[in-house]
Amino acid sequence: MNTLYHYPLSPFSRKVRLTLSEKKIEVELVEERYWEEDPDFMRRNPAGKVPVLKMGSRTLSDSNAICEYLEETHVTPALLPRNAEDRCEARRLVGWFDDKFYHDVTKKLTGERVFRKVMNTGYPDSTNVKEGARAIKYHLDYMAYLLDQRRWLAGNEMTFADFAAAAHLSCLDYTSDVDWNRHEVVKDWYAKIKSRPAFRSILADEVPGFQPSAQYADLDF
Amino acid sequence: MNTLYHYPLSPFSRKVRLTLSEKKIEVELVEERYWEEDPDFMRRNPAGKVPVLKMGSRTLSDSNAICEYLEETHVTPALLPRNAEDRCEARRLVGWFDDKFYHDVTKKLTGERVFRKVMNTGYPDSTNVKEGARAIKYHLDYMAYLLDQRRWLAGNEMTFADFAAAAHLSCLDYTSDVDWNRHEVVKDWYAKIKSRPAFRSILADEVPGFQPSAQYADLDF
Repeated sequence: MNTLYHYPLSPFSRKVRLTLSEKKIEVELVEERYWEEDPDFMRRNPAGKVPVLKMGSRTLSDSNAICEYLEETHVTPALLPRNAEDRCEARRLVGWFDDKFYHDVTKKLTGERVFRKVMNTGYPDSTNVKEGARAIKYHLDYMAYLLDQRRWLAGNEMTFADFAAAAHLSCLDYTSDVDWNRHEVVKDWYAKIKSRPAFRSILADEVPGFQPSAQYADLDF
Repeated sequence: MNTLYHYPLSPFSRKVRLTLSEKKIEVELVEERYWEEDPDFMRRNPAGKVPVLKMGSRTLSDSNAICEYLEETHVTPALLPRNAEDRCEARRLVGWFDDKFYHDVTKKLTGERVFRKVMNTGYPDSTNVKEGARAIKYHLDYMAYLLDQRRWLAGNEMTFADFAAAAHLSCLDYTSDVDWNRHEVVKDWYAKIKSRPAFRSILADEVPGFQPSAQYADLDF
């Protein structure tokens, strides 16, 4: 059996969970409070982060490295385009969401609202929350700009870029931080990805002490 | 002609410069003060970061997406192993250096010492500098642990993992932040990569107002 060490509101874990599920790779989910630096877990990934994927004797870490590995070893369905230039665009957007969007938005909203408390590192920093709330607006505008020209974020096929984006937005939606009325095209895109069977386990996530927003699991939000 | 928009002490630019040079792709280097958010540059990369590579009509950004693109379109020399599992390990380490190492070390040392001043964002934060100086030690220990078992960081072949690591360490060496006497095996690895022709342009870099350390360009450091 394969095992994925993850945390429910980790966008990096969610990207890998979506990938595993789309590629129909069965996996047992083990929740890991990775910030507690349990020695067993640190042996699996000295970076001390989730996700970590155990497949047979192999222990894989870094969400990007895991996704590329799964794409190479389980080719159907393809989650990167065939053409090198289009692949570059998909990877650019994965980097955009996992680096820029994460630091500008996810870390400042879901990070402050939830992780501060579960990690026991103090109260939410209101400056960060304000900055995150401002930044998500122009990020949603950028997504709308892309989706005005394309069916999916990186082109006309669904790719890792969509999974990365949906992973972050679903965490932010859990904490009521997404204004879905800002752009119809973004809402339509999210409705499309949210209704995929791969998304079901994510919509069932719960972090004790934090109720998900009313529309979190609702497919007609 | 191809153009790379870069900044001399940007580790992400350096990783791409090493890749272009190893793959013998000629490129004109254009220094970009990316934090000034020049509208022309922001059109090339809305993330507002270097490097950006212009190849013919294509404008590519995100250092990881660019490296993967170059690996797919210019296959010799290969900078990722052939085997999926080994490729995963190389990519894990690229992520390690470009994310963990960058935030723990490069940003706190070279970032505070140089970028604060060139970006005009105040004086170096001494807490960050102290944290970075402490963190680089255990990162060098981890590199030594890997290099005790392998010829290169990700295995017995040189990969993007070595370029990512050398890109960060060369920036830190510019600002005298690397204790090369800590581990002989790390020093030997760096001497090997530093003596490659691809490294020459990096050793010639200068940021006005910041002298490189005495050993920076010295192959017998």
